[in-house]
Amino acid sequence: MKPVQLVVVGSVGLDTIETATARCEEILGGSVSYACAAASFFVPAGMVGVVGSDFPAAHTALYGKFGIDLKGLKQVEGKTFRWSGVYETDMNNRRTLSTELNVFGSFMPELPADYRDTPFLFLANISPELQLHVLQQVKKPRFVAADTMDLWINMARENLMKVIASVDLLTLNESEARILTGEHNLMKAARKIMGWGPEYLIVKKGEHGAMLFSPAGVFVVPAWPLEVVCDPTGAGDTFAGGFMGALAEQGAIDPIAMRKAMVYGSVVASFGVEAFSLERLERLTRGEIEHRFRTFQNMISLTPADR
Amino acid sequence: MKPVQLVVVGSVGLDTIETATARCEEILGGSVSYACAAASFFVPAGMVGVVGSDFPAAHTALYGKFGIDLKGLKQVEGKTFRWSGVYETDMNNRRTLSTELNVFGSFMPELPADYRDTPFLFLANISPELQLHVLQQVKKPRFVAADTMDLWINMARENLMKVIASVDLLTLNESEARILTGEHNLMKAARKIMGWGPEYLIVKKGEHGAMLFSPAGVFVVPAWPLEVVCDPTGAGDTFAGGFMGALAEQGAIDPIAMRKAMVYGSVVASFGVEAFSLERLERLTRGEIEHRFRTFQNMISLTPADR
Repeated sequence: MKPVQLVVVGSVGLDTIETATARCEEILGGSVSYACAAASFFVPAGMVGVVGSDFPAAHTALYGKFGIDLKGLKQVEGKTFRWSGVYETDMNNRRTLSTELNVFGSFMPELPADYRDTPFLFLANISPELQLHVLQQVKKPRFVAADTMDLWINMARENLMKVIASVDLLTLNESEARILTGEHNLMKAARKIMGWGPEYLIVKKGEHGAMLFSPAGVFVVPAWPLEVVCDPTGAGDTFAGGFMGALAEQGAIDPIAMRKAMVYGSVVASFGVEAFSLERLERLTRGEIEHRFRTFQNMISLTPADR
Repeated sequence: MKPVQLVVVGSVGLDTIETATARCEEILGGSVSYACAAASFFVPAGMVGVVGSDFPAAHTALYGKFGIDLKGLKQVEGKTFRWSGVYETDMNNRRTLSTELNVFGSFMPELPADYRDTPFLFLANISPELQLHVLQQVKKPRFVAADTMDLWINMARENLMKVIASVDLLTLNESEARILTGEHNLMKAARKIMGWGPEYLIVKKGEHGAMLFSPAGVFVVPAWPLEVVCDPTGAGDTFAGGFMGALAEQGAIDPIAMRKAMVYGSVVASFGVEAFSLERLERLTRGEIEHRFRTFQNMISLTPADR
């Protein structure tokens, strides 16, 4: 097995999701599931997380099928983290029905020895305290990204600011960028955040795409225009995992590599939302990714290739 | 004076606009004002519209300063069309306070003889009945675009469908595309509209940019990310005028010309909203447009030029 190029730390959960047309009970979810599955198309990825004794062996087997390294996935006595939510008809708004932390409540991420030299690290959405704990364990990674959410902005701002000051890239969504900075205008919000430390910032805008702020300027990508969105859960994690995987695969951290990674992230996320859980990613091929990448490139290019 | 390459038919109005920070009374507005001013940076444009006897001579002089041909602008006894509205803090929602049609209520657009051979025609937002009346007066234009609004979708659907079947390009905003087709998904909505006749469709998404649907595929552009939006009134008309002007200037109607025109439209519109009325466009130069065009190109390109 090739050595792990990217370590992802985050949550593993069993999700119960209701959309306008379907309801799925206790399906595999969690930020680290989506992010590692997405990254695995590009580089060997290692997962750091925790599951309970009730975690189905089929899910562990599925991680294996993606080629995800599981040395950092702890299984402990108790129940796995559970989340349930419901989407409105247009899929843009969701309401959380319940959250049961279970074994995730006492999670303290410990990196296996050989993960401490990882060149790429993605701190998916967990508490800033745990993100800081992980940062203390790694030795000189080349590139560290962190995601966060409104909960931590409101509840753990002090630690979150320490995380932001320590990472190369922060990812958050549009409304979170506004809450975090108190600036409605995204350009102003971005400038403020980058003043706190990170060289790069990605603002995720859901169906409207994403913006990359960097020393080389702003890069804006639309989302892939889908005709059917089955389940947007995990889209942001899939995007970030695909982004980090594609960046790690390219080896270089420069404006072109960052922009290509933005498109790869968008492409993998666009497949992810076509089905529940990891169902679509499970049967996704690199060939399909490359094909949609080229079509995506044509969609945003001033000089489209002939089709 | 060079012959008119683009004729624009629409409304001229005196707008009273309130934003969170300012209030402006009876400033120059109307779809044809914004669209012709924007187009005038690219080709000689002719304006077809109506104003009342109270229309300030300074506004007519301003049209002249843009080089707009005014043979089709009628001045009649009575008051000029007036509109007033208020924007919410985030500029994304506006509420109409009052509309006084005045002389616009009995407007019947008549094209001057030499406008009937115009190669490019833009039917800005007026009633579909008037748009059809204009279509009957032109001889084989190369490219005709029409804009519309929710009012006509709800009140004059039958005539609007005739307009849609007769033009090369329809422009409307996201919510209008949904109302018109009954499809929430924009890809489905676009396919439906293109099935009704037009070869091209532009869906305007405000701060999220615009989508061009065409036989050569979909092209998606973001909006220029502004730090300050002073007044978004007329942004869609400025975009469409800039688009039509840039298309007419290029002379070719092919995928590359269409895409460049989308970016030029976005660029001119981004300047337009930096001030009230035509204030920013009045002091805008082609050099500024070209500079922002290149920066815009870098913002959406996978292979940015060095800066």
